[in-house]
Amino acid sequence: MSVYLSEFLGTMILILLGDGVVAGVALNKSKAQNGGWMVVTAAWATAVAIPAWIFGATSGAHFNPALTIALAVIGKFSWSLVPGYIACQFLGAMAGATLVWLAYLPHWKETEDKATKLGVFCTAPAIRNTVGNVITEIIGTFILVFGILGLGQVKMTDGLGTLAVGLLILVIGLSLGAPTGYAINPARDLGPRIAHAILPIAGKGDSDWGYAWIPVVAPIIGGVLGALVFSMVF
Amino acid sequence: MSVYLSEFLGTMILILLGDGVVAGVALNKSKAQNGGWMVVTAAWATAVAIPAWIFGATSGAHFNPALTIALAVIGKFSWSLVPGYIACQFLGAMAGATLVWLAYLPHWKETEDKATKLGVFCTAPAIRNTVGNVITEIIGTFILVFGILGLGQVKMTDGLGTLAVGLLILVIGLSLGAPTGYAINPARDLGPRIAHAILPIAGKGDSDWGYAWIPVVAPIIGGVLGALVFSMVF
Amino acid sequence: MSVYLSEFLGTMILILLGDGVVAGVALNKSKAQNGGWMVVTAAWATAVAIPAWIFGATSGAHFNPALTIALAVIGKFSWSLVPGYIACQFLGAMAGATLVWLAYLPHWKETEDKATKLGVFCTAPAIRNTVGNVITEIIGTFILVFGILGLGQVKMTDGLGTLAVGLLILVIGLSLGAPTGYAINPARDLGPRIAHAILPIAGKGDSDWGYAWIPVVAPIIGGVLGALVFSMVF
Amino acid sequence: MSVYLSEFLGTMILILLGDGVVAGVALNKSKAQNGGWMVVTAAWATAVAIPAWIFGATSGAHFNPALTIALAVIGKFSWSLVPGYIACQFLGAMAGATLVWLAYLPHWKETEDKATKLGVFCTAPAIRNTVGNVITEIIGTFILVFGILGLGQVKMTDGLGTLAVGLLILVIGLSLGAPTGYAINPARDLGPRIAHAILPIAGKGDSDWGYAWIPVVAPIIGGVLGALVFSMVF
Repeated sequence: MSVYLSEFLGTMILILLGDGVVAGVALNKSKAQNGGWMVVTAAWATAVAIPAWIFGATSGAHFNPALTIALAVIGKFSWSLVPGYIACQFLGAMAGATLVWLAYLPHWKETEDKATKLGVFCTAPAIRNTVGNVITEIIGTFILVFGILGLGQVKMTDGLGTLAVGLLILVIGLSLGAPTGYAINPARDLGPRIAHAILPIAGKGDSDWGYAWIPVVAPIIGGVLGALVFSMVF
Repeated sequence: MSVYLSEFLGTMILILLGDGVVAGVALNKSKAQNGGWMVVTAAWATAVAIPAWIFGATSGAHFNPALTIALAVIGKFSWSLVPGYIACQFLGAMAGATLVWLAYLPHWKETEDKATKLGVFCTAPAIRNTVGNVITEIIGTFILVFGILGLGQVKMTDGLGTLAVGLLILVIGLSLGAPTGYAINPARDLGPRIAHAILPIAGKGDSDWGYAWIPVVAPIIGGVLGALVFSMVF
Repeated sequence: MSVYLSEFLGTMILILLGDGVVAGVALNKSKAQNGGWMVVTAAWATAVAIPAWIFGATSGAHFNPALTIALAVIGKFSWSLVPGYIACQFLGAMAGATLVWLAYLPHWKETEDKATKLGVFCTAPAIRNTVGNVITEIIGTFILVFGILGLGQVKMTDGLGTLAVGLLILVIGLSLGAPTGYAINPARDLGPRIAHAILPIAGKGDSDWGYAWIPVVAPIIGGVLGALVFSMVF
Repeated sequence: MSVYLSEFLGTMILILLGDGVVAGVALNKSKAQNGGWMVVTAAWATAVAIPAWIFGATSGAHFNPALTIALAVIGKFSWSLVPGYIACQFLGAMAGATLVWLAYLPHWKETEDKATKLGVFCTAPAIRNTVGNVITEIIGTFILVFGILGLGQVKMTDGLGTLAVGLLILVIGLSLGAPTGYAINPARDLGPRIAHAILPIAGKGDSDWGYAWIPVVAPIIGGVLGALVFSMVF
């Protein structure tokens, strides 16, 4: 498998499983409706860990342009691969979001609220506040990238490091996810947002383009800062 | 132990622990009533992992005709063993369901709703929609089989791979289980449904045979597709 | 450290952490009040795993007369050690229950209901039904002992087997614990029940001695059956 | 990296992720509001495990003056390093608390209750009772230090011991955290309390200095006792 197919498939599975849990807790008549924050965060954590195990040996399992760019900035990843990685991450995220739409097909028309339906695909802040939302996403992605790099230099038995990365995603969600819904990944947010705009979702509203730049720009800033600080201290 | 006894016992334990949690959250006067989606999905995940550890070395711990057939289709399992495996998976599932009936013996007559009681044994969709329900079960079982095969080729320390499979079951439940209750396994659904029809459960209703074909057929389709795609890309 | 001190300390920690979570979810004004079934079962699972890691190499970390007797019955443990092990398990359980009383000291008089206070120490069935309660405890302890023996013969990297035992406790609680509160261990139930009778707990009621034999006798039966079936099939 | 920078950064991440989850479940309009005890305890457990993995090889990942002092008392840590470790733990905790304030920036003025806002930074007892609160913190920190030392002498595959420590934190929270909010760490409590007093938090109240000595003194007593008992029995 090429590294590009690996990033495409891995990001697709990540978004299928990640956006899937939001559909489960948010859409009407779902058996998981109002499942709670533990359900959401445990699912996103595992949604990262499973494809990270499967595709890690092939492409490094980035699934996230902020991580790809941050690794390139500190010289741990070739800039020549960056455009292809990011393109495949976005395409994978859009494919995953499409699968979520299909997996919950009868539930869209049962759900009145348009913002709820958009929330399955991409993030929205609990309180709209540009400075605050940017700071939150920067801190979250800083910890994500610093943590991945930090865990990567720990001596761990085969396979355990990926579990630890899953736990890192879990705690970022639990502890830093509440203000903005922790995009911490431009592809995770913008890819499904584009899918939401394109797909014939029953009774959908607009795709909240005014907020869309924050979960793209802030994670890139936070990720690069995390990688730079990591390089300075380790 | 023969591979057949292994599949029988493993599937029995899987269903005892899996259907057991549904009894716990659904039946009246149970201490776990309304325990929530995390309780259900964490239990099913562990209900797979525990017998997968115990019986994995003997029979490969399929416990699922969709997995058995999918492995045979891609040449990773002998067709000659398929009928015996499937028979033992169904018998094990029926035995496990019988144990759940016994473990919750005083609770059946305390529970009025007949659909709730049936729901302990087998799945029912949140919204009855043949196309939608089939798609959901196909996607869930696709990820199950693709994920098991994918995790199987990862270099992991002894025993960790089975934990990863448990996490795969967890996230399938959390993220894709809400529309149909994630049968993703014909024996898991039809075996206990037959047990429900046979057992003298206090105040039981019908066994919803009209839906019974979907959690049999769709998981087989999804599992075979998952195995084929895995074979193509890896 | 002697094997007896190991069993004493291990069972003490098990009951401190296990009964502690019940105090947390049950007593008035506790920050964990109504924390839910996941909280209870996750705590008991970890309450077993932590001392099992710490004391496993010394005494085998039984902490449970049903396991000790079952292992002796199938010849995997010396009968000469059984009385001392069981005595220390009971004393440890009583010591642990005393620590729970101390850890939640100001909460006892804030809690009116006497059964709630007793429930911190020992189990009570959701529905009082001798046959049903006995069956539930037999099935739970059967799975416990069969599972421990089964996991014990799996090739696992150092330390992972104990995590798997913790997950076994988790799923027994989640899936089979709801009808009787899963004693599955005579020392876990009778030891704290005796402590409840002795300790000067503010506003305590009786210790429900009429039920006390079930979580002693049924786990021993279930544990021995689990060990015997394991010996037959493996 | 120096051991001091390691303790500073590790404690900063611990408090960012630990106090972060309290902000998430407590502050108004947060997506995690009322997330429950499982959310809080799972986050604190992972908030310890992640920096323990990353910084363990550098400084031993104490992040806790009670642990640092306890290790020095039993001769497992040099007294000459103690002042620097403790200073960096406090500074790290204050830095982490500041990041929590920033990560939840728009939420402070949306939250009326001053005690709720203080509760994000430091602990407060469920029932104010000096003797009871001191006992609870002593027992909790005893188990913490005894457990860390006990787990440290178990033969575990690379990296798994830190996961076990995370589970130890989890169960201390689940089972012993409900009466006082489990400070079990002077830096975790007093550092953020000082930060609360200094930071320009919208609509903040006083910093409850009357209680502040308990989560400093009691954890040191409990930790030293835990280390001494460990040295006696192992």
